[in-house]
Amino acid sequence: MSDGVHLKPELPLVLSRYRDVMDLALKDAISDRSIFLYDMLRYCMGWSDTNGVPLEAEKGKGIRPSLCLFTCEALGGDIGKALPAAVSLELIHNFSLIHDEIQDSDEIRHHRPTLWNVWGIPKALVAGNVMRVLADRSMFTMPSDDPKLLSASSLIVSEACLEMIEGQYMDISFEGGNSIGVDQYMKMISHKTGALLRSSVHIGAIIGSRGGRVADTFREIGVKLGFMFQIKDDILGTWGDTASTGKPVGSDIRRKKNTLPIIHARESQTQTYQEEISELYSMESIQDHHVDRVLDILDATEARHYCQGLVEDYALDVSKDIQNIGFSKNSREEFQELVSFLVDRSF
Amino acid sequence: MSDGVHLKPELPLVLSRYRDVMDLALKDAISDRSIFLYDMLRYCMGWSDTNGVPLEAEKGKGIRPSLCLFTCEALGGDIGKALPAAVSLELIHNFSLIHDEIQDSDEIRHHRPTLWNVWGIPKALVAGNVMRVLADRSMFTMPSDDPKLLSASSLIVSEACLEMIEGQYMDISFEGGNSIGVDQYMKMISHKTGALLRSSVHIGAIIGSRGGRVADTFREIGVKLGFMFQIKDDILGTWGDTASTGKPVGSDIRRKKNTLPIIHARESQTQTYQEEISELYSMESIQDHHVDRVLDILDATEARHYCQGLVEDYALDVSKDIQNIGFSKNSREEFQELVSFLVDRSF
Repeated sequence: MSDGVHLKPELPLVLSRYRDVMDLALKDAISDRSIFLYDMLRYCMGWSDTNGVPLEAEKGKGIRPSLCLFTCEALGGDIGKALPAAVSLELIHNFSLIHDEIQDSDEIRHHRPTLWNVWGIPKALVAGNVMRVLADRSMFTMPSDDPKLLSASSLIVSEACLEMIEGQYMDISFEGGNSIGVDQYMKMISHKTGALLRSSVHIGAIIGSRGGRVADTFREIGVKLGFMFQIKDDILGTWGDTASTGKPVGSDIRRKKNTLPIIHARESQTQTYQEEISELYSMESIQDHHVDRVLDILDATEARHYCQGLVEDYALDVSKDIQNIGFSKNSREEFQELVSFLVDRSF
Repeated sequence: MSDGVHLKPELPLVLSRYRDVMDLALKDAISDRSIFLYDMLRYCMGWSDTNGVPLEAEKGKGIRPSLCLFTCEALGGDIGKALPAAVSLELIHNFSLIHDEIQDSDEIRHHRPTLWNVWGIPKALVAGNVMRVLADRSMFTMPSDDPKLLSASSLIVSEACLEMIEGQYMDISFEGGNSIGVDQYMKMISHKTGALLRSSVHIGAIIGSRGGRVADTFREIGVKLGFMFQIKDDILGTWGDTASTGKPVGSDIRRKKNTLPIIHARESQTQTYQEEISELYSMESIQDHHVDRVLDILDATEARHYCQGLVEDYALDVSKDIQNIGFSKNSREEFQELVSFLVDRSF
């Protein structure tokens, strides 16, 4: 199979090992009903073009299902048991992407037009909602010999989903507002990005270890991974290379997103920087030279250094957490490779 | 309590009896989290104004939860057990309304601006999604002494939700298309409207009777109630009185909706009518005199008589079904009153 040809060379083992099994399970979950709606979902997943003709486009990293399956397996669990939850998590992630793209008017993802951009808002909205129901449906395929596992996992995913949506609301509410501090930002990303990532690790640990203290530790690890992931995303959205990220340089600045680099610069001691960013962000549209000026201010306030430092702090923390939770030496090394990837990734 | 003051005088007992208990349970489900998002949900439910200040606005008929609780109770079940599912069904219905209004660009519901009309599409989209998660959450509050009941009910609601969304997709796909026949229309409404109504009666029967053949019969009754309900809605959307429906006269014609009256007229023997409607529906915008002309054609093809006849046929069918399914004489009479209301309602 040629899955993920664009990404594989750089992906750590944890993110590549389960790609084939996940792809099969996801294709099974997005069943072949006869209405075109399901072709829209397959397009979203990178499996077909806008006419429903199969192809292999660039895919997401699949970090949520991989984390779920890896955690389960590394704790001695059966990944078959965790697969329905892993599929559910990936579908919920895609549901959120489809709706997010509508909300943010994002026209491109992974170098391809977004769903609303191809089919309009009404159909894209419906496609997102179907993705969400298919996620629920996948959960119902969990082994029925342990109904408590199903209800516990469903409850965790449901709560994560609620937090994620609340986070999206906070994010929208913040847009254009100039007074957001680091604390509010951290709360927002812990909801918008962190909740689902956290639940991936948490559910994997519950299925792998049958709950208890180990699962709680993994929940905490998941929280930290969520922060790492989003802050790194902010770095890439500001300084990332177009060819790697699939987004234009400074794309978050053009969209006047309140990312951590911007919030850090605003909270800097230098009053003029604060005012200048507020002024630039209150403009109708942001031009190339405005982007350059914002990047200069971010340089002057060492915003990149600050953000990358936070990512590395979380990485160090997680690396410590992982020492005493029953992983084999091999699993620890694999997890460490993943953590290093999250610190250094360019896409 | 002054709930439903606009509606109560005309509502049959089945739709008024559970209003207070439902209102309390719904208010409990839409908990008081601190972000404004939840005020949007309360506005949607008719409990508060756009600033979050409590008021009593016109509410929906609550037909889904009422059907669920009534069926359960009339079969000898405990409505306390069915309440979480009833709440879930009403929240899913409201989730679908919020997203439907975005898709159809509807500006008014129950004489008040719709959510996207007040807060914009991004926030309304999120509000709909939260409503959906709260629906799931409500299901989790079902009595845990019977985990099979929870998983059976969840599965039914989930499948109904999927069908409903597929129906929304069909509806959007049909818009502007001229070649939709009665068969396609019936399939679309059985998904879009029928699935959730069907599941309301079905789940009520399962909880009230512990499943079996009775529940299957109620599932079929639910299918027929769904057709009755939507065809009557089409009649009201075409000929309804603004003061009763809260929508402008001929509102479905102005929106070029492929309602049953229109499809019936198109399938009439008279070629000129077919062409004229196709021509009117392909115009950029529909003016008052166009609406009048469509109404004339609907008169000439006896569309109203045809649609009302179908509603009455289903009503007769359901009235027969209800004779031998273990209802008391009193429950049969109450159900019959509901059926008559669905045939004759003006809102």
